[in-house]
This record gives sequence, C-alpha cells and structure tokens, in this order.
Amino acid sequence: MHRAAELERQGRKIVHMEVGEPDFSTAQPVVNAAKNALDRGLTQYTAAPGIPELRESLALQYRDWYGVNVDKDQILITPGASGGLMLLANLLVSVGDGILISDPAYPCVRNFIHLMSAEPQLVPVGIAQNFQPNLQQLESYIQSNTTGLWLASPSNPTGTIMERSRLEQVCNWARGKNLHVLVDEIYHGLHYVDDMPSVLEVDQSCFVVNSFSKYFGMTGWRLGWIVVPEPYVEKANVLAQNLYISAPSIAQYAALAAFTDEARIIFEQRREAFRKRRDYLTAALNELGLELSDNIQGAFYIYANISRFSQDSEKFCSDLLENYGVAITPGSDFGEYKSNEFVRIAFTTGLENLQLGIERLKSALT
Amino acid sequence: MHRAAELERQGRKIVHMEVGEPDFSTAQPVVNAAKNALDRGLTQYTAAPGIPELRESLALQYRDWYGVNVDKDQILITPGASGGLMLLANLLVSVGDGILISDPAYPCVRNFIHLMSAEPQLVPVGIAQNFQPNLQQLESYIQSNTTGLWLASPSNPTGTIMERSRLEQVCNWARGKNLHVLVDEIYHGLHYVDDMPSVLEVDQSCFVVNSFSKYFGMTGWRLGWIVVPEPYVEKANVLAQNLYISAPSIAQYAALAAFTDEARIIFEQRREAFRKRRDYLTAALNELGLELSDNIQGAFYIYANISRFSQDSEKFCSDLLENYGVAITPGSDFGEYKSNEFVRIAFTTGLENLQLGIERLKSALT
Repeated sequence: MHRAAELERQGRKIVHMEVGEPDFSTAQPVVNAAKNALDRGLTQYTAAPGIPELRESLALQYRDWYGVNVDKDQILITPGASGGLMLLANLLVSVGDGILISDPAYPCVRNFIHLMSAEPQLVPVGIAQNFQPNLQQLESYIQSNTTGLWLASPSNPTGTIMERSRLEQVCNWARGKNLHVLVDEIYHGLHYVDDMPSVLEVDQSCFVVNSFSKYFGMTGWRLGWIVVPEPYVEKANVLAQNLYISAPSIAQYAALAAFTDEARIIFEQRREAFRKRRDYLTAALNELGLELSDNIQGAFYIYANISRFSQDSEKFCSDLLENYGVAITPGSDFGEYKSNEFVRIAFTTGLENLQLGIERLKSALT
Repeated sequence: MHRAAELERQGRKIVHMEVGEPDFSTAQPVVNAAKNALDRGLTQYTAAPGIPELRESLALQYRDWYGVNVDKDQILITPGASGGLMLLANLLVSVGDGILISDPAYPCVRNFIHLMSAEPQLVPVGIAQNFQPNLQQLESYIQSNTTGLWLASPSNPTGTIMERSRLEQVCNWARGKNLHVLVDEIYHGLHYVDDMPSVLEVDQSCFVVNSFSKYFGMTGWRLGWIVVPEPYVEKANVLAQNLYISAPSIAQYAALAAFTDEARIIFEQRREAFRKRRDYLTAALNELGLELSDNIQGAFYIYANISRFSQDSEKFCSDLLENYGVAITPGSDFGEYKSNEFVRIAFTTGLENLQLGIERLKSALT
C-alpha cells in the first residue's frame, strides 16, 4: 500500500485490489443519526458493554437472521472487532495455551494469541478443503496444551465459509475435547449463499466476534460486538471496563440507524454490488488460469493460486504493481502454508476498475 | 454508581461526587468539526498511528506548552488513553516482569499489568508525600524482576502532581536502574499550578500516555495519544495496526478543532471553573476535619482521609449515599494501602451541587 501510494504520487494510475475496506462510504441514515447524536450532546462515556438500545437491536437481529435467542446481556459492544478480539483473548487465553487457527488467516488473530504469550497452532488449509479446517486435521494438530479453536467464516483472506454441516462437526469435536470455540463472523451479511449459519445456531456455548465495519460500512467508526455465553457475561463486562471503558458513543448512537429499513435497503444494494463483482472476478481469474476455490461465498476477497505463473508471490505482487499498476496482497501476509503460491485479490473497487485490473493482469501473465 | 442510579429512580436527589468525567459536554467547535468531517465522508480507517495533521498539532503543543521538541512520528493517536496504555503495556511489559506503581492509583493500570502476566509492585504512598513515590521508597520496593516504573501526574485518585525536582530525581534513579518510565499525563491541562512539567521536559527516553478526554472534554469519543522514544516508533506502529487498526476517524478530525483559539478559550474557562471548585472544596473539607494533601494541583479529585470519622471507607461511602444522598468513591477502588481510611471526592459537578454535598456531608459528620 505504501509503494502504491508512492506510485500514485508520481502520477501512475493504480488499480487497488489490496484494500480490506468497502469502497462505499457510510450510509446516509447512519451519518444522519451521528449528527443527531452530536446535536443531542451524546459525547460521554457509555456503559462499558454499550448502550442498551444497540445491544437490543443486535439481539433482535440474531432472532431475525439466524432464529437464535441471544439475550442482550450476552452482547457487548466493542471498539471495533479488534476490541472484541482483544477482550476475548483476555477472557479465554492464558500464558502457554495453544489455540488452533487456520493457516492462512487474518494476521491479527495470530498476533493477539502471541500477545497473550500463548501459542497459535496453525492448521494448514488448502484450496481443496475451501481453506477451512476439517476433522482429520484438527485431530492431528491438537496438542496437550490446546485450549481453543478459532475459526473465521467467511474467512479473510479466502472468502470461503464453513457450511452448516462442517460447523456442526467441528463444534461437536471441540466440545468433546473441552475446547472453547471462537468464530470470527465479521463478514456476515456480505455473503452470497442462502445458508450462512452463525455458529450460535449450532452451539450456543461458542463465542462470536463481529463488526459494524463491513456489511454495515462503518470501518472508521471503530464499532464491533461480541457474543459470550451467559456464564462469561460478568467477567466480560469487567474486562470491557478495564480494557477500553466503552466503545465510541457517537458511533453507537449512529449504528442504531443501521437497523432501519432505509439503511437496510442501502446495505442490500451494496451486497448485490459485491456479489456482481465476485461473479465477474472469479470467472475472469479462472479464465486467466489462476486456481480458485469454487466456494467463495462471502467477504470481498479471493485467494488465488498463482503457481502456474510464479513460485514467489511477494515478487509476483511487487512486479505486478511496478510494471502493471495493479495492487494485490501476497499470501505471506496471512500465513506460511504455501503462502508463496497464493495472492489475495480484493473486490473493494468498482467493476470498471476490476475490469482494468483484469486486463492488466492478463498482460502480465501472457 | 449503580446504587446511586437506583436511588434516583426512586426519586431521591443524589449529589454526584463520584464521577470521573467532566460535566461539561464537548465544546461546540469540536462538535462542529465532527459534523463537517461527516459531511466530507471521512468515515474510513485512518493510518494506524493517526492522521498526520493531528499528530502535528500535538507536536506543536509539546513545543508550546513544554518547550520540548517531539517529532510527530513519536506521537501515536490511540483509541482513548486505554488504547494507549494497552499498546504501551504490550510494547514494554513481558511475562514475569515487575512494574513499580503507586498505591493508590487508577485501577486499570494494575489490571493492564496483570493482563500481561506481569506483576504490579505497589509502592504505598501517603498524604505526607502527596501520594507520589519518593526515592527511598523506590529503592526499597524495587526487585530483581522490576523492569519499569509507571507514574501518574496529576494522579487519579489523589489530584496531586510530581513537581519538577521530584520528577528529575525519580527519572535519574530509574535510568540508573535501567527501568523504563511511563507517565500518565491524562490530566495535564487540568492543573492549577504554574509549573506542570511533562516528563519529556526532564527525560526524553520516557513514555507518555495522554488523552483528549479530560482537558479537551472528549470522553465518549475515545481518543488519546502516546509519545514513545524514537527507537520504539516502528514497533509501536506495528502494535497499533495489530491491536486496533486505527483510532476513530471522525473523532480524530473533530479533535483538530481542539487546537483553535475558539476552543482553547472554552477549555481555559472550564479549567478556571474546576479551579474554583477545587478551591471551594478543599477549604470546605478541611473545615469539616477531613485530612487532605495541601498539594491538590491537578485533575478533579480530592483523596481525603476520613479516619477521624470512620475506619471503614466502604461503609462510610455506602452510608453517605443511603442516608444523605451523596455519592463518593471508597479508597478500596484504587488500592490497598490505608484504603479503608480514604475516599475519593470528585468535583465534576457544579459549585451549587458541591455546596449541597458539603452541607449533607456536614450533617453526616456531626
């Protein structure tokens, strides 16, 4: 991203397919609600777990979207999903614990585990298994110090999801091993498949981290939430108070407007735009000979195998940027497993730009 | 606070002298700047260490207020002082380290040390030393695993500051022992003394955490900053990216307006109001026979010894609330040392309310 910005300052037109943030600005109903909250002077700390109205709105969404009953007390509003992940790391992980996570995965997950002086136990996941761990693997990678299993569905960087049956299998297995299960559901809402289960439909003893950043388009507001089982509510509240006092107040009041019909229509239009981009990009990349999962059903990422063209994804990305003005992300940002063969391509820019990116990629590959 | 809210719901008039948040709402120039940023759609993630303009404004403030040159790259904007404290804890503290802190102190400090699986090493500080540690104590409380010294000036809960000479002594000592020094300067700006040195005037190898919450009146916006020595800048940036991605964007753009003359006039008026409250309250409490430090020079707290009236500050506070409708905070919220003899009294409410509080306290004590 630094080098891309440099090239742009030199006047080059760069196609950005590296950005992990929706290109849509925050929806107007949410912005208006923020202004309204400012006029009402709602700039004080809120209660540590968030304002009750917002927790209630999320509880209703769990009923409407997933058909699960989550008490609003189980939902804590956090300063971004980062704040949620940090709280859950502190709640669930002790020094020396082992936590099973996928390789590749969102890099901060591994870092939070390291920060707790615990051990990320990487489960290498390949294209054939849609970059999601399976039972045989978990059986073989679990160790005596393993205390948890952290999943992401949809996954950053792969855009793949855990189908209901796999989720059920894995949760059953984890329960049998007495592991806690944490699922990153940050990209829920931005899914392109009918059945996108929350882990809470499958097992209410699991932990969820989610965010207003992606589907709700509120990245810079730093607003997320977590869901914790009832026995953890009190401890989670104490941690919230100690770790961050409260999530930003104006963002919380603004987010209430995300649950209006007016906002929902905008979000669904945007989801549809992402779906079209996904359709276009997967077809175009397949045609160029990059190997993809056939199950890219969420988020705005494609994790593509470039080994037909290069065995060094960092060099591949760097050459593509320098020589063709297309910015994408090498697999090494997300893990170790075959990371030199993979790149992450984001569709957080419009179709026209994506078409230009594909044209340039075609020139690079042929 | 819970019980106070309950009593209010029953129709009781409660005098709030327990709240750790200014009673003034965010100044209008800052609110207006936030609305302007919303109109400009500045709702994306910012760079992890914050927007350059805000870091530059703070660098100028270090020059203007303290006469020290701090490079803007050494300043990182954080999601509240909490985010800054968390980053510094991760930057500076390893498992098993010992960190010297005052007892009493802001409780989250101790908690952050515990979260790093390190050991808070409490230095009991009494009224005669203005609740700030002295050299003899540090010499006697340092242990073989001690790696850092964390100070607060002005201090919550005591309202006392470290004078320049004491700061110099202590920093010299710490340097000789090869300890890092971190100073909580969150209440700077809200000081009532001419010489309120930043530790950076004394020793540029120290770490500072600060906040837009108190002097700048931006609690719910969750915006703070840290200053780190140059050799730590790169690692601090990586941690920022991993721990929270960025501080809230709208809050950052809003805070730019805090450096305008228009806003500064408002902040200085508020500081003057706090000073008047401090003057009134210290005199009134002395008259009632509570023992105070004679050096309450910052923040909006008084840490008062009630041992003439009670040996159980929790019961004292609870009785005062139940029977007289005055909410204050027992010393046990801030430490162990003589905490049963002390209460924290906040002047985050207007003079009229403070007068009512004093009247009621007088009834309770006589």
